[in-house]
Amino acid sequence: MLDVCLLGTGGTMPLKNRWLTALYCRLNGSSLLIDCGEGTQIAIKENQFTFKPIDVLCITHFHADHISGLPGLLLSMGNEGRTEPLTIIGPKGVSYIVNSLRVIAQELPFEIKFIELTQNIETIQIKDYNITAFKVRHTTITYGYTLQVNRLGKFDADKAKALNIPVRFWNPLQKGNSICDGDVVYEPSMVMGPARRGLKLTYCTDSRPVDIITKQAADCDLFICEGMYGEQDKTDTAREKGHMTMVEAASIAASAKPQPAQLWLTHYSPSLYNPEEYQKLVRAVFDKAYVCRDGKQTVLRFIDE
Amino acid sequence: MLDVCLLGTGGTMPLKNRWLTALYCRLNGSSLLIDCGEGTQIAIKENQFTFKPIDVLCITHFHADHISGLPGLLLSMGNEGRTEPLTIIGPKGVSYIVNSLRVIAQELPFEIKFIELTQNIETIQIKDYNITAFKVRHTTITYGYTLQVNRLGKFDADKAKALNIPVRFWNPLQKGNSICDGDVVYEPSMVMGPARRGLKLTYCTDSRPVDIITKQAADCDLFICEGMYGEQDKTDTAREKGHMTMVEAASIAASAKPQPAQLWLTHYSPSLYNPEEYQKLVRAVFDKAYVCRDGKQTVLRFIDE
Repeated sequence: MLDVCLLGTGGTMPLKNRWLTALYCRLNGSSLLIDCGEGTQIAIKENQFTFKPIDVLCITHFHADHISGLPGLLLSMGNEGRTEPLTIIGPKGVSYIVNSLRVIAQELPFEIKFIELTQNIETIQIKDYNITAFKVRHTTITYGYTLQVNRLGKFDADKAKALNIPVRFWNPLQKGNSICDGDVVYEPSMVMGPARRGLKLTYCTDSRPVDIITKQAADCDLFICEGMYGEQDKTDTAREKGHMTMVEAASIAASAKPQPAQLWLTHYSPSLYNPEEYQKLVRAVFDKAYVCRDGKQTVLRFIDE
Repeated sequence: MLDVCLLGTGGTMPLKNRWLTALYCRLNGSSLLIDCGEGTQIAIKENQFTFKPIDVLCITHFHADHISGLPGLLLSMGNEGRTEPLTIIGPKGVSYIVNSLRVIAQELPFEIKFIELTQNIETIQIKDYNITAFKVRHTTITYGYTLQVNRLGKFDADKAKALNIPVRFWNPLQKGNSICDGDVVYEPSMVMGPARRGLKLTYCTDSRPVDIITKQAADCDLFICEGMYGEQDKTDTAREKGHMTMVEAASIAASAKPQPAQLWLTHYSPSLYNPEEYQKLVRAVFDKAYVCRDGKQTVLRFIDE
């Protein structure tokens, strides 16, 4: 299961009662954070999560509202006793940006590893996270991220018995390991069924609507997307600023095949005082859309988990 | 009159309901900010102040909790339409630190002027602020700041009449300007009484107790000082970390001659859940001490204003 928490729903600047948009995920004791604006570390604590298990930080782009909280977060991770390396993924130049910001966070008890994205689509496997970074269209180079959690097939105990595989090998085979027992080799494929449906989450902010987002959002358990403006007459403003309206985001979800199970909207303009008033409007376009508030959480589970 | 607001009272990291320590002052339409940690811009808004009039930013030192909010603040000042230059005062290296942090806030509609402190004591006059920066003792180079607002003497109308000074020159003379009227020169000293008591505020965090703080705190209308720990058994910890306890801060106020009119304590360790429980203890040392909460405000007024 994958714990998911939308830490904030703001764009441009943090507001009282509206943190900047960022996502905290937790899987098998490892946490992954997408973006880290000013105040994100407070939002993490507010939602009862911790800094120490954050193994991966994905940065969408280098606008301040998506990365300004980084020095404080790094120091707080150190204060919580992290010593294991942290991997930071971001557009080309992410190491330069992070190292510049670290002028006020120089001494950390852990190493930072960087993965700089240069392609339109890249896939990265870290721990149990299968990460796909995909380039979107904003006013600066920006990536969306899809997280997938794979799931192995079912173990067939009857088959294992029929093949006389000793019980002590069942567990390693279930975990995908091959076993050599003298001259005999046991392969997982001998006892494991076909891979089962895993979990898929796609996160996209900031961007205009582009095809790659629709493709990534397809068949998602959860699609999280910016909806900078609710007002229909702000479509031109959204276009000029490289953002999208809530209705444009809902249209992406509606046109994805298969459609995502849920859409969470986020990254509201500071001028948008009451985003929820557009809930009805976006539901008319995609009925599983949620105009989120800070701290919205869910647990994504495997189908029969 | 000088409006004063202690925006936050936290040290080390921002917490829910406890912003990092920073001070917002307002005088004759111009604002001055001391320190700018993560979240300071939210605290400014929360207290109904604005970013645009901030003419001066004084940085005590380069630990993240005192400067990490800077890129966000600069961008928000720009978004509010500031075009006038901003002066940033701080220890030597402040331009390097600020410019490094500006990697995510490169395009601003206003210029930044830097004043880099190199002496143990320096005085700077900007607008109506007389600023004294004084070096204190922390784990890195750190300055405290005294703000003074001078007050001219009283205008003596009887004297002006007796000297036959035309009424149209009274106002410029009151403002300290000399007037040439043909061959006749009128000087302010001809009609102005001796300078009257102005306003004085001293701000110090982070530091061990040192003599210069006591000297600066003398005769203050308001002395704001760190009190990182309330517990008496934390004096050694405070010494090791270059901080002071609340009682140490109160002792400074008590030994200043003349004593400051008020002491506000701030910059509490995140481990200090309820700073107010030490109010009695510090009052036993200095009876005009306040263990402050975020957003504590006052207006300092001239004696007969």
